This record gives sequence, structure tokens and C-alpha cells, in this order.
Amino acid sequence: MLKGRSLIDPRDFTVEELKEIFDLADDIIANPKKYAKICEGKLLATLFYEPSTRTRLSFEAAMLRLGGKVLGFSDSSSSSASKGESIADTVRVVECYADIIAMRHPKEGAATVATMNSKIPVINAGDGGHQHPTQTLTDLLTIRRIKGEFSNQTIGICGDLKFGRTVHSLVKALSRYKNNKFVLISPEELKIPDYIKKEVLEKNNIEFVEVEKLEDVISDLDILYMTRVQRERFFNEEDYVRLKDSYILNEEKMKSAKDDMIILHPLPRVNEISCELDNDSRARYFEQARNGMFVRMALMAKLLGVCE
Amino acid sequence: MLKGRSLIDPRDFTVEELKEIFDLADDIIANPKKYAKICEGKLLATLFYEPSTRTRLSFEAAMLRLGGKVLGFSDSSSSSASKGESIADTVRVVECYADIIAMRHPKEGAATVATMNSKIPVINAGDGGHQHPTQTLTDLLTIRRIKGEFSNQTIGICGDLKFGRTVHSLVKALSRYKNNKFVLISPEELKIPDYIKKEVLEKNNIEFVEVEKLEDVISDLDILYMTRVQRERFFNEEDYVRLKDSYILNEEKMKSAKDDMIILHPLPRVNEISCELDNDSRARYFEQARNGMFVRMALMAKLLGVCE
Amino acid sequence: MLKGRSLIDPRDFTVEELKEIFDLADDIIANPKKYAKICEGKLLATLFYEPSTRTRLSFEAAMLRLGGKVLGFSDSSSSSASKGESIADTVRVVECYADIIAMRHPKEGAATVATMNSKIPVINAGDGGHQHPTQTLTDLLTIRRIKGEFSNQTIGICGDLKFGRTVHSLVKALSRYKNNKFVLISPEELKIPDYIKKEVLEKNNIEFVEVEKLEDVISDLDILYMTRVQRERFFNEEDYVRLKDSYILNEEKMKSAKDDMIILHPLPRVNEISCELDNDSRARYFEQARNGMFVRMALMAKLLGVCE
Repeated sequence: MLKGRSLIDPRDFTVEELKEIFDLADDIIANPKKYAKICEGKLLATLFYEPSTRTRLSFEAAMLRLGGKVLGFSDSSSSSASKGESIADTVRVVECYADIIAMRHPKEGAATVATMNSKIPVINAGDGGHQHPTQTLTDLLTIRRIKGEFSNQTIGICGDLKFGRTVHSLVKALSRYKNNKFVLISPEELKIPDYIKKEVLEKNNIEFVEVEKLEDVISDLDILYMTRVQRERFFNEEDYVRLKDSYILNEEKMKSAKDDMIILHPLPRVNEISCELDNDSRARYFEQARNGMFVRMALMAKLLGVCE
Repeated sequence: MLKGRSLIDPRDFTVEELKEIFDLADDIIANPKKYAKICEGKLLATLFYEPSTRTRLSFEAAMLRLGGKVLGFSDSSSSSASKGESIADTVRVVECYADIIAMRHPKEGAATVATMNSKIPVINAGDGGHQHPTQTLTDLLTIRRIKGEFSNQTIGICGDLKFGRTVHSLVKALSRYKNNKFVLISPEELKIPDYIKKEVLEKNNIEFVEVEKLEDVISDLDILYMTRVQRERFFNEEDYVRLKDSYILNEEKMKSAKDDMIILHPLPRVNEISCELDNDSRARYFEQARNGMFVRMALMAKLLGVCE
Repeated sequence: MLKGRSLIDPRDFTVEELKEIFDLADDIIANPKKYAKICEGKLLATLFYEPSTRTRLSFEAAMLRLGGKVLGFSDSSSSSASKGESIADTVRVVECYADIIAMRHPKEGAATVATMNSKIPVINAGDGGHQHPTQTLTDLLTIRRIKGEFSNQTIGICGDLKFGRTVHSLVKALSRYKNNKFVLISPEELKIPDYIKKEVLEKNNIEFVEVEKLEDVISDLDILYMTRVQRERFFNEEDYVRLKDSYILNEEKMKSAKDDMIILHPLPRVNEISCELDNDSRARYFEQARNGMFVRMALMAKLLGVCE
């Protein structure tokens, strides 16, 4: 039963509950008109203490496409936070106005504080480097829609695996399903944290390898999840120059990839996926962005209890 | 007849007109569904020349909950004002787009200028240190809903009584009703202005006392209206240190208060009401914030003439 | 057939297509209720990379008055652009959320890039000094509604004719109709660019004169289109002082004007039209602003294909 619940960490929901959300998302994609008014009279408050246009617009579009309405703020400079109000107080006022909250905050744990003080559902739309659960739902829905399942996949994850919260959440989320194998592709400095290797991967007996170069492994992959590698993350310029091309996906590298390998990216991208690939049928990152809206529709409908 | 009128100063409306608004607010609270579409096709323009998230969201939620829609801006940096346009011109353009305006402006008198140039109703959502009439309506509705009337109350007002426009408006508003007594609690430097004492309180033969310490009078009060005392308002640090605890309401002080005394606060609070009181049944400031939305719904419905 | 098309330059549409839009705008003005729900379920994305409140509110009001909904951002600081995302990528994501885009961007050509990458209609809401086609549609609709036609008019255009994109677009647009005469009123430094004289006016055999002083020609005009002359555009202070009064329209100058001459202005104005003229029946600039909303309603309805 998801009605009235909040979403802070993707693992707040069981695998069965996630399935409920994805099933509903599939049905919304297939029959959008059926859902065009189910949130009539409902208000979403988007409390964005730091700007994130893509995420905010995705939430807003999701609520509007369900027939609901939206209010909120898009950065903290125009919020009462600048007057020193606590998150707890802000939430207790906003719950008087709205039916559900999507909150983005630069501090880890902010969404948890919000949930503890709220009578209405709170969705974490990103709290610092911590969690961004609707991105993970987006990634999972996209994989399920294309691959049909979350199991038996070889998943390459490429780029900054140290600081990328999207990556951490995705690894944790996929670790709940059977027979997946991870290929972790990153420079030495940006390897996935030890706690994820030990407490997530090894603990669940999940096969994984760590490599430095995408070209060495791309032919093995069913899914390639790209992320950005920021120059300033490297310890020295020499390494950056030596490695940067390994983290840019282009037509040349894609020649080695399987015909049904899919490329995902949380967006925005800068140059880590060459635009020449945008028309490659394996490039699914814009479809992924579109799924982001649909999975948010399904999620909000479930938390509001307007869909069985 | 409130249709087509504007609201600049809470005293723009007679006591009977205010009663009409509060009666409607009560009915909206009791039967929200009855009113969920009465503003269908109506547009509210929120022209906020300075940020005030709480007030803006309250207005927006109010219009959305009536079935209307909202457009506007949340601070002047993104408005034509930065191109040197006069308020009169902005209003004459916005009245082409919208059906009603809520305007917040840092300068006193801005809302009056807007009203003089507008064919559609203008609601003052705060003009500098001057007026903030919908806060006063919020305060009055909350008192009426809990106390049943505006008369025969001993009302403590605590904090910065010199600069607090909310306080001035509330005193003026309550001075129109019979048999109230005010207990004005503030440091010497922040006493209520003389003109209010002379032209409002004394002129209307209203009993009042001025005291420095909340603990000395809290047991007499039916209503305690708390406001913030900003450190920088004090003339010297010594006074601040000596007095600051007198202006923080906590469990200890509440032990002396009546069982049916209510605590109000315009919010946001910083530390002037201890969070330990939030679950005290006498703490009614979040309910007050909620009433703020409902009284704005009633007000806009009346000014737009969509309710009898 | 306008369905699915974009609008970058006013001349993207034929004279017949423009007529379709103006006819629809006239009908919307006459029967607003008939159109109050035709965009139900449609979403407009307002992507404003620089603030322009008037234009944004006009687009938003237009979509809301058609029963649609709106999402977007009002300046680039709160957009993904600050993370280095290309316009192409932003548009490809936004088209997943919305049905139509209105884009304002400081760089010339930005809207063209957007259109090339978008599956949904894009309306240029201003790209640098380049084009601002919905302002031109606004001007044309206003002229047609008052004068009945676009021909046989003597049109004075006064102010900064060098940098004013509004002026360039209007001249180009009106050059497609018969028997008009232009009176171009500007200081020497701010004369209309040569390419417009040669490639637009002379090429189409359109009569025009260039003069320096408004008072010398005002009595000849059927339409007077005023724009602002910014002090900093003058080469020297002496010229500015000598000429500035010639570019301020007031009661005195209007004594020489025809009884049915109309005054237009794209707004916002600063002081180039004296407020004493606001009640002159020939002053039509606020009506023009109102027409701006209606022509945007007609335009969006046509591009979305919801009206025949």
C-alpha cells in the first residue's frame, strides 16, 4: 500500500511496490487519456532549494498531465528559508496548501527531516550528494521497458563512479535483482566507493569487475550507463589528458557494441556522448528523460492514492 | 457589495463586510468541494516585487483550490520593473491578462498606486512596512474560529511592536470590536508607536497596558500573539542580553498560561517560540497559516463576485 | 496549414496564413468563452533564458485562457543551461514534457536551433536583437482591428530605428501589403539600417521618407509607432540634448495629429509617451498589449491544431 507514503531512498519501497509503480507507468504511457484527470483538485508543491530545471519540469509536467496543479519555488533565494525558517516549519506550512511535496535541497538528510514533519507525502527530488530516487525509478523503468526485466544483464557504468549519486543508487537498486553483472568503468581516482563494493555488491554475491577503459569492455555490455567525468575531479592533468577520451562515447567505440546494447544517461550531458550518436537506435537517453515524467506520474498517483 | 473592490488596508472593509468574508471562509473550510471550481476560467496575477514565498504560495494555493489559475513573478529582478516601467503601466498591462492581482512591493503606497490604475481588483500582499491586510484577515479568522468572537478578549502582543506592521494592523483591526484589552509586551526601544496609542487605542477608549516581560502577564491572556525581536533592533547589546529570554516562549512560561489561551504567530518564526510547544494544543500558528489560505479564497471569491 | 509549424521570423508565414491567425484572434476576442477549453490537456513550456516578464506573462495568460497549462523557467540562472547543456538537448527533453515551446534567448539564432531539434512547435519569443515575431503579430492585429486593413496607411515610426528589432520586423511585415508609406523619424545616428531601405523598402517600391523631427510630420500620419531612444545610443551629449524632446510625444505635439491617428508602442515605455496622453482616445498601446495576448492565443491554437 503506497498511499500516504513518502519516498526518500529508492529502497524505501519493496521490489513488489516498485513493480506496482512501473506497471502503472506502463499503463499511463499506453493510455495517457485515461489518467489525464485523475489528480484533478490535487496540488503539488515543488520546493526547490537549489535549481534543477530538468527535475522540476519533469515533476510539474507529471502533475499537470494527471490533471493536477502546481505551486512552489525554483531556488531558495526567493523562499522563506532566507529568513531563517527551518525545513520543518516550511513543510508544516506547505502541507496546509498542497497535497504532495517534491523537495530538492543541497543538504543530505533534508528530505528526511521534511518527511518526519509532514502529514502529506514527500518525494526527495535530490538531497545533496545523497539520494535522487526518482532518477533511479526513471532508470529502472527505462531498463524494464526495453529489456523486459532487471535480471540477466551485463551493466556497464562509466564515468565518475565515486561522486555520482545516480550511479550509487542505480547499483543499489539493481542489486536487488538476480543474475546481473556490473562492469565499473572509471579512472583510478573515481572508482566506486568501497562501501558499495563490500556492502552492496559482495554482500549480495553480485559479480563485478573494475576497469579503466570503456573500449576494453564495451562489446560485453547489455546496458551502458554513461555519466560525466569532470576535469576538476582528477588528481593531475596528466591522467586527465591520458584518459579523457576513454570517457567519451562516439561512433567509433559503438562499432564494438552489441546491436541491442542501450545507452542511458541521466542528463544533462556535456560532451561525454557525442551528438553523432543521437540518431543511433541504441541511444535511449531522451526516451529515458521522457520515462522520467511517466514514472513520476505513476509515483505521485500511487502516493496520493488516486489509482488502485 | 465587495465585487470589484480592492483591498489595500484592512479597514477598507466595514465590520459587516469582514463578517461576510469570514462567514464564507468558514463555509469553504466546511465544504471545500462546493468551492473547488467556482473560479474556473479566472486568473490571478501574483506581482511580487520582493520575494515572500509564504504569502505568494498562500495566494496561489487559494486560487488553485478555487479552480482558477495563476501567473506572475516572484521577485522584481525578472520583471519589467527593471526596465524602468512604472507600477501604473505594469498594472494596466497585467489587467489585460488577469482577473485579479495580488501585489507585494517594498515601497509603501505601491498597492494604492496599483489600485488607482487598475480596472480589476488589487489585493495588497504587503507594501513595505505599511500594510499586509491578508495577514490581518488571517489573524482575525483564526481568532473568530477559536474564540467565536472578537470581543471580550485580553490580547497579549509580544515582541517588536515598533516596526511590526502585522502588529499595528491587528491592533487597529481589533479596535473596531468591543471590550477587548491589549497587553503590549516589548522592550522599551520597541514599544508600539505613539500614534497607535493615541489615535487608535485611546481614541476608541480601549484598555491597554505596556509591559516589558512576558512572564509577568502571561496568566492574564486569552490570546498571545508572538512576533520576532531582531537583535539589530536593540540600541545596546546589554539590553538585548538582559531581555532576549523574555521574548522566547517556552514550556516553562506556558505553565502560567490559561488552558484556553491560544498562541498565534504570523510566521516564519526563528526561535521566539520553542519547538517544544508545537504539540501543545494551545499552539495554533500552523492552523493560522492554513486559515490564511482559506481567508484568501473567501476574499478573492468575494472580490471576483463569484460567490454571493 | 499551420498545425505543427514553428514561428521564428514573422515572414515564416504567408500573408494568407497571417490572415487565418488574425481572423481567429478576432473571433477569440468576440467569443472568449467558445475558446476557453480548446487547449485542455495541452502544456506550454516557457523557456526564458533572459527575463521578459511582459512577454512571458502574455504567453502564459494566452495558454491559460485557452484552458491549457504552463511550465517553464523565467531566467537562465535556474535552468540546466548553467550546467552547460546545449539548447538542442534542452529542447529534446522539454518536448517530452510539453506540447509547444515559447523560447526567449539572448543569442540570435537560438530559436532556429531549437526548432531544428524539436518535434513540437517552437515560438520565438525574442532572440537577441534579431526577431520577436509575436510582437509583430501583435502590432499587425492592432492595426487591422482599428484600421481594417494593412494598406493605404501612412505609418510613422519614431525613435531608435537602428537597433530596434521591433521596428525592423514591423517594416518588413508591412512591406508585404500595398500602398503604404513610411515616415522614418530618428536622429541621424539611429537611422534605419541601409539593408532595410534597400532590400525591403526600395525592392518593394515602397515610398518612405526619413526625417529628424516628429513635429514636422505628425500631421501626415495615420499610425504613429513610438519606441524608446536611449541616451547611451547617441554619439554625443550635445545631440542628445538638442533632440531628445523631439522623441517625446505629448499633448502639445498631438494637437497637430489627425483625429483618427493611432499611437502604438511595444511597451514598456519610460518617458517617450507622456502619461497625459493615456486618456487620449488615439492612445492605443494598452489595447495593443491586450491584443498581444489574443494573437498569442490564436497562434498557439493554430500551431497546436486545435482550431480549424
